[in-house]
Amino acid sequence: MATASASVAPTPLLKDELDIVIPTIRNLDFLEQWRPFFQSYHLIIVQDGDPSKVIKVPEGFDYELYNRNDINKILGPKASCISFEDSACRCFGYMVSKKKYIYTIDDDCFVAKDPTGKEINALEQHIKNLLSPSSPFFFNTLYDPYREGADFVRGYPFSLREGVPTAVSHGLWLNIPDYDAPTQLVKPLERNTRYVDAVMTIPKGTLFPMCGMNLAFDRELIGPAMYFGLMGDGQPIGRYDDMWAGWCTKVICDHLGLGVKTGLPYIWHSKASNPFVNLKKEYKGIYWQEELIPFFQSVALPKDCTSVQKCYLELSKQVKAKLGKVDDYFNKLADAMITWIEAWDELNPSAAAAAVKLPNGSSK
Amino acid sequence: MATASASVAPTPLLKDELDIVIPTIRNLDFLEQWRPFFQSYHLIIVQDGDPSKVIKVPEGFDYELYNRNDINKILGPKASCISFEDSACRCFGYMVSKKKYIYTIDDDCFVAKDPTGKEINALEQHIKNLLSPSSPFFFNTLYDPYREGADFVRGYPFSLREGVPTAVSHGLWLNIPDYDAPTQLVKPLERNTRYVDAVMTIPKGTLFPMCGMNLAFDRELIGPAMYFGLMGDGQPIGRYDDMWAGWCTKVICDHLGLGVKTGLPYIWHSKASNPFVNLKKEYKGIYWQEELIPFFQSVALPKDCTSVQKCYLELSKQVKAKLGKVDDYFNKLADAMITWIEAWDELNPSAAAAAVKLPNGSSK
Repeated sequence: MATASASVAPTPLLKDELDIVIPTIRNLDFLEQWRPFFQSYHLIIVQDGDPSKVIKVPEGFDYELYNRNDINKILGPKASCISFEDSACRCFGYMVSKKKYIYTIDDDCFVAKDPTGKEINALEQHIKNLLSPSSPFFFNTLYDPYREGADFVRGYPFSLREGVPTAVSHGLWLNIPDYDAPTQLVKPLERNTRYVDAVMTIPKGTLFPMCGMNLAFDRELIGPAMYFGLMGDGQPIGRYDDMWAGWCTKVICDHLGLGVKTGLPYIWHSKASNPFVNLKKEYKGIYWQEELIPFFQSVALPKDCTSVQKCYLELSKQVKAKLGKVDDYFNKLADAMITWIEAWDELNPSAAAAAVKLPNGSSK
Repeated sequence: MATASASVAPTPLLKDELDIVIPTIRNLDFLEQWRPFFQSYHLIIVQDGDPSKVIKVPEGFDYELYNRNDINKILGPKASCISFEDSACRCFGYMVSKKKYIYTIDDDCFVAKDPTGKEINALEQHIKNLLSPSSPFFFNTLYDPYREGADFVRGYPFSLREGVPTAVSHGLWLNIPDYDAPTQLVKPLERNTRYVDAVMTIPKGTLFPMCGMNLAFDRELIGPAMYFGLMGDGQPIGRYDDMWAGWCTKVICDHLGLGVKTGLPYIWHSKASNPFVNLKKEYKGIYWQEELIPFFQSVALPKDCTSVQKCYLELSKQVKAKLGKVDDYFNKLADAMITWIEAWDELNPSAAAAAVKLPNGSSK
């Protein structure tokens, strides 16, 4: 299924250590615009919905493609944890990847331009974000202190300047902002035109809305927490897949002393999804979220949770214990979280054995 | 001592509700550049050092000026809490102001330009920051959600979108960044040229290095916490005045459910202070800070601390109990913190009586 890639751009970063994961229901013409930036990398395409449909991938890209039949065959009964008819299915791609890094992007995202008119190599910026440390324990007012031309400002404790490894790089969107259905309905014409030239670490203890449209992460550091939950077909909600992954991931990163960055790079988000359809998908999530956030804000993981897997299984227990009463959906989700980890460990046997060491003083 | 101000710019915001506080040891020629933006406002000039020196203020500004003799006369023995030969003396200006808002700026700060070449009205931006809410309980990835063209993104809990009152607006600096002496020594030529077009709330529970160069705050909400400590003449450290105020302020804002913003506006910081002199002032601070940060990170204020004054007095107790053993300086500082509150209440009798109501669920 793979086609050999032609040689493009000069020495792309992490060429053999990063997979690009794309969930899709249509032909991947959007890749044409990304060709100069993506063609050296391997793509993992997760086909959402009807497996009999043929997805066309532009010539010259090196890819593997999984449809629902493939997922069922590979995971067997454990395939139940992978959402159907929802882009949440992308997390299957994280699981089957054998690389250290993942970049995931939606097929309605195009190359954005910086204020000088230059095309933004989003992937390159994500890689820079992931390869430089994060500073979650204290806020630096000049943003990313590791960036060229910047540093830690007066008053930043010297003992914290080494930073911590970065697990997640969350990129942003020009043009169509990532709004919920009510905001889409109220502000149908709002476009994001503000290019904010910053990357920053989200402080420890602070939750954020992680969007899966333009997202990179270190699979070895945090992969098993990047489960996009049960959404879409047969489930009572949608559009909370990336949010769920983000809250779980942030809580676990905080516990393990790992960093989460947001800001650059921007992609160009071409078209807003239908707000009426979105409202139907979201409305229970909007309601439940008011219970979810206090839950995640108060999660405490015990010291013996020294690997992402252990953290995630503990989290699934707490989800069942504390959110099960909000709706039975969370009991199912908690079970799916366990299934997800079992499936992850089955496909990644060596990673399962390696326990992540808890850095000094980073436990809650 | 006051000269009437001529009418300048069209309807300046909060003209009668804001004082500009400037600590200085020299003639205030720098005000010429600020004339279009500052001339409608009242200035409080706090003269640092030798009181016999005459400070010249450009024509047409409405101001009051206090030198050390004035401070001693007004505060009597309580004047001991106001630093001498250090710009920390500026906090005396906060105390004698009768206005709701304060903007403070250093006399080596000039008008910066935005990327389009337009002169930045720093004060106007600070006022916008102070008059719009903050969002400390959850991170918004598109920065200030209250700004035109922006909003809360998908996944931001609706119950948190009302925000909380903003107490502090921390502005930044183009050209000379606010670095400590070691960084100045290592990077003598580094200049900040990056204009980051963002304002953001510093999340609850996160400390930051608050610089006093370009700072605005709501005096009614947080004034008594803006004590710049004991620095300069006769004291073992300098250049930690604003940092100290920032840590105290942030901890109290977090407890009282108030917001702290950082980002825009930029001013143009014209010249770096001498790094060798700075190193002498800072070196104990750099060392002590490693104990101060864990202290402030773990401060818990009891529920009955319902006003800034009560919070501040409780904080002074904890400083004495926990930092007194780091150095005897902190015992003196803790005493000065009490003196400061006594002096504040003496000069602001009505504010002393009004207890700030603790918002729902905002206690630690």
